[in-house]
Amino acid sequence: MLDAVIAIRERLRSHSPLVHCLTNQVVKNFTANVLLALGAAPAMVEDPGEAGEFASVASGLLVNLGTLSREQIQAMDNAISSARKINTPWVLDPVAVGGLSLRTDFARKIISSSPAIIRGNASEIIALAGQDGGGRGVESGRSSEAALEAARSLSRKTGAVVLVTGKTDYAISGAKEIAIANGHPLLTRVTGVGCAMGAVCAATAAVADSPLEAAVASAVFFGVAGEIAARHAPHPGTFAVKFLDALDALNATLLVEYARVSSAEQ
Amino acid sequence: MLDAVIAIRERLRSHSPLVHCLTNQVVKNFTANVLLALGAAPAMVEDPGEAGEFASVASGLLVNLGTLSREQIQAMDNAISSARKINTPWVLDPVAVGGLSLRTDFARKIISSSPAIIRGNASEIIALAGQDGGGRGVESGRSSEAALEAARSLSRKTGAVVLVTGKTDYAISGAKEIAIANGHPLLTRVTGVGCAMGAVCAATAAVADSPLEAAVASAVFFGVAGEIAARHAPHPGTFAVKFLDALDALNATLLVEYARVSSAEQ
Amino acid sequence: MLDAVIAIRERLRSHSPLVHCLTNQVVKNFTANVLLALGAAPAMVEDPGEAGEFASVASGLLVNLGTLSREQIQAMDNAISSARKINTPWVLDPVAVGGLSLRTDFARKIISSSPAIIRGNASEIIALAGQDGGGRGVESGRSSEAALEAARSLSRKTGAVVLVTGKTDYAISGAKEIAIANGHPLLTRVTGVGCAMGAVCAATAAVADSPLEAAVASAVFFGVAGEIAARHAPHPGTFAVKFLDALDALNATLLVEYARVSSAEQ
Repeated sequence: MLDAVIAIRERLRSHSPLVHCLTNQVVKNFTANVLLALGAAPAMVEDPGEAGEFASVASGLLVNLGTLSREQIQAMDNAISSARKINTPWVLDPVAVGGLSLRTDFARKIISSSPAIIRGNASEIIALAGQDGGGRGVESGRSSEAALEAARSLSRKTGAVVLVTGKTDYAISGAKEIAIANGHPLLTRVTGVGCAMGAVCAATAAVADSPLEAAVASAVFFGVAGEIAARHAPHPGTFAVKFLDALDALNATLLVEYARVSSAEQ
Repeated sequence: MLDAVIAIRERLRSHSPLVHCLTNQVVKNFTANVLLALGAAPAMVEDPGEAGEFASVASGLLVNLGTLSREQIQAMDNAISSARKINTPWVLDPVAVGGLSLRTDFARKIISSSPAIIRGNASEIIALAGQDGGGRGVESGRSSEAALEAARSLSRKTGAVVLVTGKTDYAISGAKEIAIANGHPLLTRVTGVGCAMGAVCAATAAVADSPLEAAVASAVFFGVAGEIAARHAPHPGTFAVKFLDALDALNATLLVEYARVSSAEQ
Repeated sequence: MLDAVIAIRERLRSHSPLVHCLTNQVVKNFTANVLLALGAAPAMVEDPGEAGEFASVASGLLVNLGTLSREQIQAMDNAISSARKINTPWVLDPVAVGGLSLRTDFARKIISSSPAIIRGNASEIIALAGQDGGGRGVESGRSSEAALEAARSLSRKTGAVVLVTGKTDYAISGAKEIAIANGHPLLTRVTGVGCAMGAVCAATAAVADSPLEAAVASAVFFGVAGEIAARHAPHPGTFAVKFLDALDALNATLLVEYARVSSAEQ
């Protein structure tokens, strides 16, 4: 799996996949800078008509529900429809699904439209799988392990790879389960890190041999870059800057040295 | 008062209040990072229906009018209504009120809905109090002292603590007046500093014993962190990064060393 | 021309022109911080009614189509109309025009409303001039030289200065052509650099003796600040921070040392 991660890192630079991000208002700038740091090309096209046009030329699509609006729902519906017609992978990030009605209803509808990857924290994955959420917003109080059953169920039901992020990240694809034990607590002190990982899943899915490898690579990139950034940045302002630097600098040598990827037991 | 400021700083870390921010498009990312740096948990939920749902679980609510739209007005109305039902404190930041009609009319309406704190620069407070504004946008050309009479009038009329920010910040609560003489000119060279202070007022109001202590603590945090950040950052790009670092590092020792809080004469 | 560039740099500090930015969701924060770093005063007022009111007090107006919506079109129409009534310069940034229908139709309509400056990459300028675009989003795969004929045609047709950005930037005003050979590859690795340059064109146009000098100055500021920032920042996170620092620090000495401005041959 590490070979695949390294290959995906190189392909982001050489292919520069164009990623169409329909995402929330808080993280658009950071998401675009994360994609650029890794070598991908971000674009946010949000008018419902143009979103459908644009998804037909992009290489990957992100649908992030963080600040969902009724107009954005139309753009997302059109973009997902365009992406599916040409088999462009799309990624769902079900931010804060569970307690809020508009996004929860919409997320439950679109998971039947074949997302390649669903990325969320434990509360979001549990809620999306139809179990009680208990989240209080975008931050999850539950460990990723608590969501493994829900992730398995969601993966079986949708066919998607489910990436549950937390202290340890888990990528679940049917019977295959991979654990990524990288990361640093400062990653939770910068807004939009999880949301940007969803965007990177759309970029990696555009160049990977499988959505499972794409999800694992995305989690590894964030965890390793977070560890590298934290070495000289004890506070979140500097850490966020060094994190972008570290994503840019990620290469095979660093991935071999840092990555902690293993098959999870089921 | 300094004891209260120190207690509030610790409570932000230990309680991590969930702050619902209905704020402008320019500052959402920075606002979220400021709240995270201090230990609070930001969330932006903007659909009018979901905004009402979410305000009923948040610990504090910010209403910032910087890029007000008609749809956002509905979200703000619903969120304020939800917050008031369960006595959750809400904060008004009347950005650029005075010369622009939609926001000025809306601000004058909602100040009758019992905001806990109103934070603005001199021009905004003067305009909101019903006097001639003279502001040319978000930046105020007037000293905070010029708005003291308007702030007193506005506090009496609304019951809110009025926090006028400028070279010296003033927190006015009925007959009580506190001056905070911290800060640095670079704080005016980074977009969204004032707006983020409004969000921090909502966070501190969620954990403070009174809105007055919450407003004073917010102004002290920004002024002290600005002074610390400026020691090694003469330019605004690095300053903004170090400012987030300094907010994270703020503790009792630094607050005792730096804070300049005094009762203002009336 | 270098004397004019230096004079404009000083006037941004001394006049602090108020710039009304109607721009895309990804870059609002960075755009505001770029304007503040140079000494200008940014404001984003987006409600269609208020946008018309505000444009009548601002010193310059930016219309950037990056995340165009139908509501934003109304705001832009009103703001352009207000600006024209009092001869306030306005700048068009036709982001991703060519392949997307809503923005392409709108851009082709408003170029008849006398923009002072049109800033875009090669693909955007070629598409706006009515030739085949071939762009795949906001990033241009074509050299700026490939757009020179289109830029000349667009300048003749609209009366605007056309600023084509790329490895070398070109400012075209009728028969006058200026090449600016500053810049650094890292400028393409930070989101919103081109969009922020459009905003700076609106700021410089407010204080310059001609739109041509304004366009040249804007390109020089970005290219020189990019070169200075890159000296100690090999990665895009730190580079973006140092770029803001360098804009703040720009002065006559640095401009004389770094600027590479020449009349282009036609």
